[in-house]
Amino acid sequence: MTAASITGLAHRGDARICRGCWDQMHVPIPIRGPLALPFRAFGITRSKMNPNICTICERSFRYVKKQSHVAASATILFADIRGFTHLSERIERVRLSQIVSLFQDRCAEGIWAHDGIVNKTMGDGLMAIFNFPIVRKDHAEAAIRAALDIQRLCADALGSLDLDWLGGQPLGVGVGIHSGDVEIGEFSSFRSDFTAIGGTVNLASRLESQAEAGEILLSPETAMQAGALAADATTRLLTLKGIEQPVEARVLDHFIVSSKQ
Amino acid sequence: MTAASITGLAHRGDARICRGCWDQMHVPIPIRGPLALPFRAFGITRSKMNPNICTICERSFRYVKKQSHVAASATILFADIRGFTHLSERIERVRLSQIVSLFQDRCAEGIWAHDGIVNKTMGDGLMAIFNFPIVRKDHAEAAIRAALDIQRLCADALGSLDLDWLGGQPLGVGVGIHSGDVEIGEFSSFRSDFTAIGGTVNLASRLESQAEAGEILLSPETAMQAGALAADATTRLLTLKGIEQPVEARVLDHFIVSSKQ
Repeated sequence: MTAASITGLAHRGDARICRGCWDQMHVPIPIRGPLALPFRAFGITRSKMNPNICTICERSFRYVKKQSHVAASATILFADIRGFTHLSERIERVRLSQIVSLFQDRCAEGIWAHDGIVNKTMGDGLMAIFNFPIVRKDHAEAAIRAALDIQRLCADALGSLDLDWLGGQPLGVGVGIHSGDVEIGEFSSFRSDFTAIGGTVNLASRLESQAEAGEILLSPETAMQAGALAADATTRLLTLKGIEQPVEARVLDHFIVSSKQ
Repeated sequence: MTAASITGLAHRGDARICRGCWDQMHVPIPIRGPLALPFRAFGITRSKMNPNICTICERSFRYVKKQSHVAASATILFADIRGFTHLSERIERVRLSQIVSLFQDRCAEGIWAHDGIVNKTMGDGLMAIFNFPIVRKDHAEAAIRAALDIQRLCADALGSLDLDWLGGQPLGVGVGIHSGDVEIGEFSSFRSDFTAIGGTVNLASRLESQAEAGEILLSPETAMQAGALAADATTRLLTLKGIEQPVEARVLDHFIVSSKQ
């Protein structure tokens, strides 16, 4: 197989070979089709972080990168359900779990469609990384497109629920995105899955904490890299906990689901 | 083997059989010693959430519980590094990753020593569950003892670092603990690892967000169940985001590492 034909296999929607292993090591690891079967016998399957990468990417960071962590340029996206604590005090847990499931699945759909990975999930929230292990030069733009998909898909899904029990509270998702240098690697000796840390990650998380239901908050760095996609965004000056200088966030707001609709 | 001798194997510090599978299903799954070898060949190994449970507990929730989620009584612990965003703006990422590694490993040590599981890690934070899958009737007390261990171990570890670069900022860990009913299960169709959701989880998280460096904040419910362990705690009235009534938290404060020490 030529490098070109391998790259072709790796860049389809349902990649036949692991796109992470290809982008990081130029090694073709089959993840779909009959060639994937012998690998599956050795426990190498599609990753839960993104079905176009494999568990080598996910669990063998040290093996792939030959270091416990590396510096990388990436875009980090945080999303969570706004007002979830308020909700969780008021509705039964089975109902709550339906909402969490809808949220997690729709977010993953949006993130995977633009080559991001769902790196961490935590109840009503998650963190995604763009540009690692699948390389995307336009990672800021990819993350914004994922966020727009997340807002649209979640609004559709949450809108289909019977919302009478919300008591007029809007139900929606808040998203925060920032692009910059991060340290990617394995940071605990007992877990072999990788994550990203650094100021970039924390700023993305802080932005998300300030996003209202239906809003996407971009850092100036992400907005600048994304060009036309962020052209319609309004500007909001934010003072963020632990960040010395105020941040001039760009705001994309589209989608709110409310029981008043 | 009798049930009594199996229970003996399961309750030692380094359990020979999975304590989660034993407590939840009364099925002995070897996780250490020669009997564990054939299981390892089928991918059943010790869990990264707690080395005394196995990957069946971790990844096969539906198979073990015959439902996608169940109601359970549990104690939830959140911990994170206070001032981490401030730190992450000021020190180099390699240094930051050392601190995250110290934190994650010491927290796991404290949690595992008291039969909790490290259910989620997220950069400078984590979430632990007590009373599932390893059953502990005294789960509130176990979580507090884990928190005391976390504070002691982290203070020792962080204190051993050269802290000149902190610029007088205290470096320490904040912990929040709450006990109550939770929904435990798998809430996304793309991840097969379980977590806990519900108002109990959110209150624990909110308490943690209010804990200063070196503090452990207990909900009234956890304090009441823990008896003598919380007797020395001071009381602090807190208004928490998304929670209607103020919460009368109990505060245990012991450990702060500061560059002024």
